[in-house]
Amino acid sequence: MSGGWVTVAGLGPGDAALVTPEVTAALAQATDVVGYIPYVARVAPRPGLTLHATDNRVELDRARHALDLAAAGARVVIVSSGDPGVFAMASALFEALEAHPGRQGADIRILPGITAMLAAAARAGAPLGHDFCAINLSDNLKPFTEVERRVRHAARGGFAMAFYNPRSRARPHQFGQVLSLLRAECEPERLVLFARAVSTPEERLTCVTLAEAAPEMADMRTVVIVGNQATRRVGRWVYTPRGVPA
Amino acid sequence: MSGGWVTVAGLGPGDAALVTPEVTAALAQATDVVGYIPYVARVAPRPGLTLHATDNRVELDRARHALDLAAAGARVVIVSSGDPGVFAMASALFEALEAHPGRQGADIRILPGITAMLAAAARAGAPLGHDFCAINLSDNLKPFTEVERRVRHAARGGFAMAFYNPRSRARPHQFGQVLSLLRAECEPERLVLFARAVSTPEERLTCVTLAEAAPEMADMRTVVIVGNQATRRVGRWVYTPRGVPA
Repeated sequence: MSGGWVTVAGLGPGDAALVTPEVTAALAQATDVVGYIPYVARVAPRPGLTLHATDNRVELDRARHALDLAAAGARVVIVSSGDPGVFAMASALFEALEAHPGRQGADIRILPGITAMLAAAARAGAPLGHDFCAINLSDNLKPFTEVERRVRHAARGGFAMAFYNPRSRARPHQFGQVLSLLRAECEPERLVLFARAVSTPEERLTCVTLAEAAPEMADMRTVVIVGNQATRRVGRWVYTPRGVPA
Repeated sequence: MSGGWVTVAGLGPGDAALVTPEVTAALAQATDVVGYIPYVARVAPRPGLTLHATDNRVELDRARHALDLAAAGARVVIVSSGDPGVFAMASALFEALEAHPGRQGADIRILPGITAMLAAAARAGAPLGHDFCAINLSDNLKPFTEVERRVRHAARGGFAMAFYNPRSRARPHQFGQVLSLLRAECEPERLVLFARAVSTPEERLTCVTLAEAAPEMADMRTVVIVGNQATRRVGRWVYTPRGVPA
């Protein structure tokens, strides 16, 4: 197998200052980088490095391709935005591995990264400073009723929530349904943070109440953070206190 | 106020290769570092840098001290393990700021880091690859009934779960109660990962079923990850598939 490997690496939300040295070192050793087009575009080309940029929604093909390259001796980095283990390529790689027992001896590493909700939270203050949930609002891979069920449990459990993939051109209406569901469960003053493209030149943060929140405030580059009942403003910041009074 | 500032920085789980360049740059500019003793011990001493290491459970005093130093012109980094916004110092800083309106003009930045659950998940595979919750099991700042209520909602909502501070010498029994609660809600084959001191020389990962899980498998340096119903093994890895079948 001549030393091939597959590393799934998190590039963080965008700013190079948020890429860990571990990921930078893996990229420096790679012969091949595979990933979704905008993420591969964040890797600097160099002699000896082949970039394989593919479209969205081909995660399993991409993972299989990476395993095949490594089996032939390549040193492959699969790049993900944020953290590869949070709604990203790490699970897809293991799904591909499960479907392909002949590759299960592959040399695999997963390198964590700064995931979008934590970058967004840091920029806004500390809205995830107490118990919280991360929910992918996309229904590409699960029924939307399951999304609604989880949001309801998160609200009733008193969790703050981070929503990934809240809204896309193909799914313009579901985020409105989630906001309606939240309005039925939570008080209208509940704080909602829309954090778009954090740490990039297009960064935009907006904090409103649940009563003011509108579906158009989100797109696919937005992470939405819904506070818990105690989440509040102090100066220009939004934060969730560390405890729950007895 | 002569250019003083306060930055709350996440040092990640332990390995220097997981510290972001942004955090490294902030530490290089600091005049003062404040934090819990073992985290301050991770910062290299140098001329011009004063290290203020304090004990656990004095988070508000520490935050107030940092704000006072900055008001006097110091460039202060409050160091947290992992990510400062996840059960760490960022919320404590905003609590101190709220209690001290005279400091609300302070120049504050929060710098994200690799939080323990994501480092642990990466090492084990991708157990948090679908919707998940993060829950602090400590009842220092909330009633234990609230912990139980949240774990129950997380289980019923089909979330994977990451537990911070699962067990300490002062609270040896509560984690056993959480395991009992999970056994009442989930099937005995549910996978449970105990990840201790990830990325340090003391790292130890153990994956067992819920039926096999025992309180002694956790201590204060352990993050516990409970999979969802679909979490499975492939080779030496543990992962959660990206979707829920319709």
